[in-house]
Amino acid sequence: MSLDHEINKNEVDIVIGALNADLTPFLDTWRPFFTGFHLIIVKDPELKEEELNIPQGFDVDVYSKTDMEKVVGSSDTTAMFSGYSCRYFGYLVSKKKYIVSIDDDCVPAKDPKGFLVDAVSQHVDNLERPATPLFFNTLYDPYREGADFVRGYPFSLRSGVPCAASCGLWLNLADLDAPTQALKTEQRNTSYVDAVMTVPLKAMLPISGINIAFNRELVGPALVPALRIAGEGRVRWETLEDVWCGMCLKHIVDHLGYGVKTGLPYVWRNERGDAVESLKKKWEGMKLMEKSVPFFESLKLPESAVTVEDCVVELAKAVREQLGSDDHAFTQAADAMVKWVQLWSSVNSSG
Amino acid sequence: MSLDHEINKNEVDIVIGALNADLTPFLDTWRPFFTGFHLIIVKDPELKEEELNIPQGFDVDVYSKTDMEKVVGSSDTTAMFSGYSCRYFGYLVSKKKYIVSIDDDCVPAKDPKGFLVDAVSQHVDNLERPATPLFFNTLYDPYREGADFVRGYPFSLRSGVPCAASCGLWLNLADLDAPTQALKTEQRNTSYVDAVMTVPLKAMLPISGINIAFNRELVGPALVPALRIAGEGRVRWETLEDVWCGMCLKHIVDHLGYGVKTGLPYVWRNERGDAVESLKKKWEGMKLMEKSVPFFESLKLPESAVTVEDCVVELAKAVREQLGSDDHAFTQAADAMVKWVQLWSSVNSSG
Repeated sequence: MSLDHEINKNEVDIVIGALNADLTPFLDTWRPFFTGFHLIIVKDPELKEEELNIPQGFDVDVYSKTDMEKVVGSSDTTAMFSGYSCRYFGYLVSKKKYIVSIDDDCVPAKDPKGFLVDAVSQHVDNLERPATPLFFNTLYDPYREGADFVRGYPFSLRSGVPCAASCGLWLNLADLDAPTQALKTEQRNTSYVDAVMTVPLKAMLPISGINIAFNRELVGPALVPALRIAGEGRVRWETLEDVWCGMCLKHIVDHLGYGVKTGLPYVWRNERGDAVESLKKKWEGMKLMEKSVPFFESLKLPESAVTVEDCVVELAKAVREQLGSDDHAFTQAADAMVKWVQLWSSVNSSG
Repeated sequence: MSLDHEINKNEVDIVIGALNADLTPFLDTWRPFFTGFHLIIVKDPELKEEELNIPQGFDVDVYSKTDMEKVVGSSDTTAMFSGYSCRYFGYLVSKKKYIVSIDDDCVPAKDPKGFLVDAVSQHVDNLERPATPLFFNTLYDPYREGADFVRGYPFSLRSGVPCAASCGLWLNLADLDAPTQALKTEQRNTSYVDAVMTVPLKAMLPISGINIAFNRELVGPALVPALRIAGEGRVRWETLEDVWCGMCLKHIVDHLGYGVKTGLPYVWRNERGDAVESLKKKWEGMKLMEKSVPFFESLKLPESAVTVEDCVVELAKAVREQLGSDDHAFTQAADAMVKWVQLWSSVNSSG
C-alpha cells in the first residue's frame, strides 16, 4: 500500500487493550508497522496474571488496575474498564492527536496482492484527508490517488469536512454477533473490498471497536465506555459497549460537522471463544439495540451544544429521559457518560 | 461472477439509446450477456443516419423519431428525447418489471480475475435482493454470498426493503464532469471495488445514467427526462439530465420506503468526445447543481403522496415554487415532470 505522504509518528498513540498477558505474538506480527510509534498498553483490570509479556523494541507505556484506581477510585475501575473497555483508559490518558486501536487477537491482513496491510498508516491517512458526509461519491474516497469526485458532485462540497473517525474492517473472522456466528460457524470473511468511504450524514452504523482510529483532539471525549450488558464477556460478539459508543460518536460527529469513514484498513482476526457457548447466555444486546435505533433516529442535539463535552452531556440527558425507564442499563450509561466528561476534563486539564 | 439463482429473462428489458448508428461493435461485445433478453433500442431523434446497424441474433425492438412523434407529437420529440434522453422513451414503452440500461460507448469490464462482468445479471441480482437504507452495514451487501449483517445491526431491520434502483460503475473513463476530465486528461479509473451497497436514507448522490437498472413496476415514472442544460451535448460530461433525475429518484425512493444500491457491476467505458472542447462551453450544470442541493436537502414530500406519480407531481410543484425564479431551466423541468406523469399514465393504461 503506498500512501502519498509521511506520517508524523509523534502525533499518534497506538492503544492496545491487553485481554491476554502474553502480547509477544501480537506485537511481533505488528512490529513492522508499530515500530517508531508510542504504544499505550492497558491491562484488563480483571486479568489475573501478574505481568504482561511485552517483547523488546517498542516504545511502550503500560497501565494497569493500580493506575486506573488512582484516577477513578477502586470501586469504579472494574465497572468502567473491565474487558475490552480497558482501552478507554488509554484514550483518556493519551496526549496525542490521533489514536489507533486494534484488538489483541488481530494480526496484519494481506491485501489481494499478498502484501501485509499497514493498518496504522491507512487509519492516519483516513483521518488526515477530509471526509464527505454531505453528498455520497459513488467512486468512494475522492481524495484517493486515481480517484475524484464524479459528475454531478456539487463543487461547493468538494473540500469536505474534517474526518473524526476511521473504522477498519476484518478478514477471516468477521465482527458478527453471537447468534450469527453460532449459526454460521464455518463462515469466514474473505472479501477484501479495496475502498474507503465516508458514511453519510445521519446514517446510523454499528461501529466496531476491533480496528478503529479517531482524532482525539476533535472528538476524544465522545469515545466513552457507557452501555455495558450484564455479564458482557471477553469475546467481541457479546460486547455492546463499542456499538453504543459508536452510535453516540456518529451522532455527535454529524452534529458538529465532521465525518466518519469506513472500509480500509483490514486486519486479520483470529478465533477466540466459543460462539455457541455465548449464545447460551441471554444476549441482551439485541433488545437494547432495538430500543436504541428509534432513539438515535429521532435524536436532535440542541444547537447550544457546540463542544464534544456539551454533546455527550446533552446526549446523556436524552438517554436518561427517553430510554431510562425502559432498561436500567440505559440509566447507567447516561450516568457513565456524564462522569466520563468530568473525568476527561480533570485528567486533561491537570495533565 | 457467480450469482446464486437463475434470472427470469422475460422480466427484463435492456434499453439502449443509440447515439451512434453502428451498434455492431457494441452489441457484439455484449452478446454473451444480452442474448435471450429483449432489447429496446431507441434511436436518438437527432441522429441523421437513415438506418441503425444491428447485428443478427438479438431479440430487438427499435424505436425512432417517428414512434416518438406518434406518442408526444413532433414539437416535443426533440425537446424530450434528444441525445442521451432518447432512452427515456424506452422506459416509457417497456412492459417489463426490470430495466437495465447501458450507454452505447461501454463494453463489458473485466473483474480482477480477468473474467468478463455480466452486468445484466448483477443489476437484476441487486434489484431482486433487498436494500438496507435504514442502517449502514459496514461489510457492504449483507445478502451477498459469504457476507452477513455485522454485530450491532438491529435484527428488526435485517429483512431490508425493496430495492428500486441499481447504479453501476465504470472502469477506464470514469464518469467525471467536463472540468475534472479536462484537468486530468490522462486519469483513468483502474480501481475495481468488489462491493454493492445501499446508499443510506436521506443521503444524496449523483446517479449516473451510463450503467443503471431499476424496478420499473416500483418506480418507473420517477425516471423522468426533465432538467436539460441549454446546449447539452452528446457527451456525458455535458449532461445533467441523469443527475437531476437521480436526485428526484433517490428522494422519491426514500419517501416510499425503498432503497438505491451502488457499486457493482462495472462496465468499461471508452473515450468519446473532447473534454477540453466541452469546457469551452459555459457549463451550466455546475450552477444548477449548487442550487439543487439545498433544495433536495430541505425537501419533504407530503404524506399524502403515496404513489410514484403523486411524488413526481409534488416534487414538480416544489421545484416550480422554490427554484423556478432562480433559473428558467427549473420551470421547464417542473413542466416536463408533470407532463411525463400524464404521458406515463396514458401510454401504460392504453398499452
